[in-house]
Amino acid sequence: MNKYQKPGELYAGLRLHQNENSSGCSPKVLDALATITREQMGFYPPYDAATRACADYLGVDPDHLSLVNGLDEGIMATAIGYLRPSADGFIPEAVIPEPAFEIFAFDTEVVGGTPVRVAPNRDFSFPLDRVLAAITPRTRVVFLTNPNNPTGTAMPLDAIRAVSHAVPDGAIVFVDEAYAEFSGTTFLPELATFRNVIVGRTFSKAFGLAGIRIGAIAGHPDTLEPLRLAIPVYSVNIAAVVAVQASLADLAYVESYVREVEQSKALLYAACDRLGLGYTPSAANFVLVHAGDRLAQVLHAVSKRGIYLRDRSTEPGCAGMFRVSAGVVAHTQQFIAALEEALCDAR
Amino acid sequence: MNKYQKPGELYAGLRLHQNENSSGCSPKVLDALATITREQMGFYPPYDAATRACADYLGVDPDHLSLVNGLDEGIMATAIGYLRPSADGFIPEAVIPEPAFEIFAFDTEVVGGTPVRVAPNRDFSFPLDRVLAAITPRTRVVFLTNPNNPTGTAMPLDAIRAVSHAVPDGAIVFVDEAYAEFSGTTFLPELATFRNVIVGRTFSKAFGLAGIRIGAIAGHPDTLEPLRLAIPVYSVNIAAVVAVQASLADLAYVESYVREVEQSKALLYAACDRLGLGYTPSAANFVLVHAGDRLAQVLHAVSKRGIYLRDRSTEPGCAGMFRVSAGVVAHTQQFIAALEEALCDAR
Repeated sequence: MNKYQKPGELYAGLRLHQNENSSGCSPKVLDALATITREQMGFYPPYDAATRACADYLGVDPDHLSLVNGLDEGIMATAIGYLRPSADGFIPEAVIPEPAFEIFAFDTEVVGGTPVRVAPNRDFSFPLDRVLAAITPRTRVVFLTNPNNPTGTAMPLDAIRAVSHAVPDGAIVFVDEAYAEFSGTTFLPELATFRNVIVGRTFSKAFGLAGIRIGAIAGHPDTLEPLRLAIPVYSVNIAAVVAVQASLADLAYVESYVREVEQSKALLYAACDRLGLGYTPSAANFVLVHAGDRLAQVLHAVSKRGIYLRDRSTEPGCAGMFRVSAGVVAHTQQFIAALEEALCDAR
Repeated sequence: MNKYQKPGELYAGLRLHQNENSSGCSPKVLDALATITREQMGFYPPYDAATRACADYLGVDPDHLSLVNGLDEGIMATAIGYLRPSADGFIPEAVIPEPAFEIFAFDTEVVGGTPVRVAPNRDFSFPLDRVLAAITPRTRVVFLTNPNNPTGTAMPLDAIRAVSHAVPDGAIVFVDEAYAEFSGTTFLPELATFRNVIVGRTFSKAFGLAGIRIGAIAGHPDTLEPLRLAIPVYSVNIAAVVAVQASLADLAYVESYVREVEQSKALLYAACDRLGLGYTPSAANFVLVHAGDRLAQVLHAVSKRGIYLRDRSTEPGCAGMFRVSAGVVAHTQQFIAALEEALCDAR
């Protein structure tokens, strides 16, 4: 099994390598954290109010939603719930269109399941035919991400419907919508119809709460139940409970950040065009840049200037590519300046 | 599979039902939380400094320790790492001396393993012979808790050594030391010799950090590795990272609380003696009280006075018993007054 390569603990420079909100959380979250008492720190946390607030924001029934300690926990719970081998010799398969968030295949292997990787289209459009062809009677999970990471590409909701219809009884479709605030598209309203679909959401990205660990999984209670059993009963901390409610009371902050991400992406596309670099148009808060044989020089030079990027060149279909967060415009401009210098140096 | 019965979300009264520190965390933790910035909330957290501080406190090498999102995560990771069936028909067994923290058997069943329950001695002393007799070639984990929950009984370290020698190759002994600050006894110095032992610690109890979710697992890196693979890479939140370091810089707070727990236990024992109730002498921060056929009356009357207790009467060997936290002396006195009234009412 390949070990997940966790990025180094890099905090001295400009973090554009983990798709974070580089302006951080809403200031109102800090105000809310300041109200936490010593007793609240000492007590196991209550979840009812935060669950209701989150369900209200996402437009689902609270019984159809569980808070999770970051969406990573929801993915691991999916693996535990659906992808463990059974003693009768059955080994479940997880279909994973690539390139993908590495944790899908990693967690599948951790619990003993088999990842079935689907090769990408050259333009990173969703390879529906190959995904459908990869589904077998052993399929228990199809992991989708919309918009996808690291490509930023959105998939048609019709593709999700088709996959939901194609999987065998007892299998689920896990739709990771970590970046849905940026794309404005969600499968959530369809959960009532598509009972084998689970949607994962996170407050790490648009809401700027990656540090405090809060996400949610939504779906039919029968479909969620195996995940709920695998999630420790007090996995979400009291600061996350408080923070998510304060965040949801300040949606203007998120809306403003989403607009800033749009500006940053436009600046990044223009810079790439100017510098002769390719890129994949993104529906998320990052851009996959096609640096080709200039990749190593760019990564080295930009890193020397204290800016962290994510080398994605070893991912399927991603040779010569790196991923850069698109967030605060000033940060994007700082990156573009470093990129321009890097490419001038490299000439 | 029995579903774990999570206690209700009860916060209006006096919480003496979850072995929490009812005075909460050190005031210095709140000071430290106030330094958290919007950017720290938005970034995935760094763990090196908190891991080193925790390893230093516990006297182990940082490579032999991982932070966890509460010890519950460490227990689930143990189940995922060691107790999953394999497709060749092998179903691992977890030996669990009862009464025990219910999560051991619950998580074992969640991943498809088989809990092997060992009946208690009448006085709740450690049933070493029966534990050794329960070990088979299929044993992969022995779950021990020292001091035990819900009995408060300590086990001899020699019993842990004997179990460590008795388990088959590839099996581990998981020693839950959630209450070790109260007993003053730990197996940690022996980990270098007993490489198949993992010690679990938590900051939920003596340190009063149950709400923020922080614990640690310690052991030989080879033994820890299957757990580490099962723990999401960012499972511990930034507030927990900050809080645990502030807590470890204020050990006087914990020492003072541990002394107060001793006073509370002495008061509880004296009250039980006075009222003709039995109890199990406890090395932890709670007492298992033997109310016998007066149990229902006590639980009802004390609950009516806004004090929450944990009914443990359906646990093996625990008929007629409830568990009450022993923390702040004023809280203990409030409980004793309610208990006295309850037993007078019941006459």
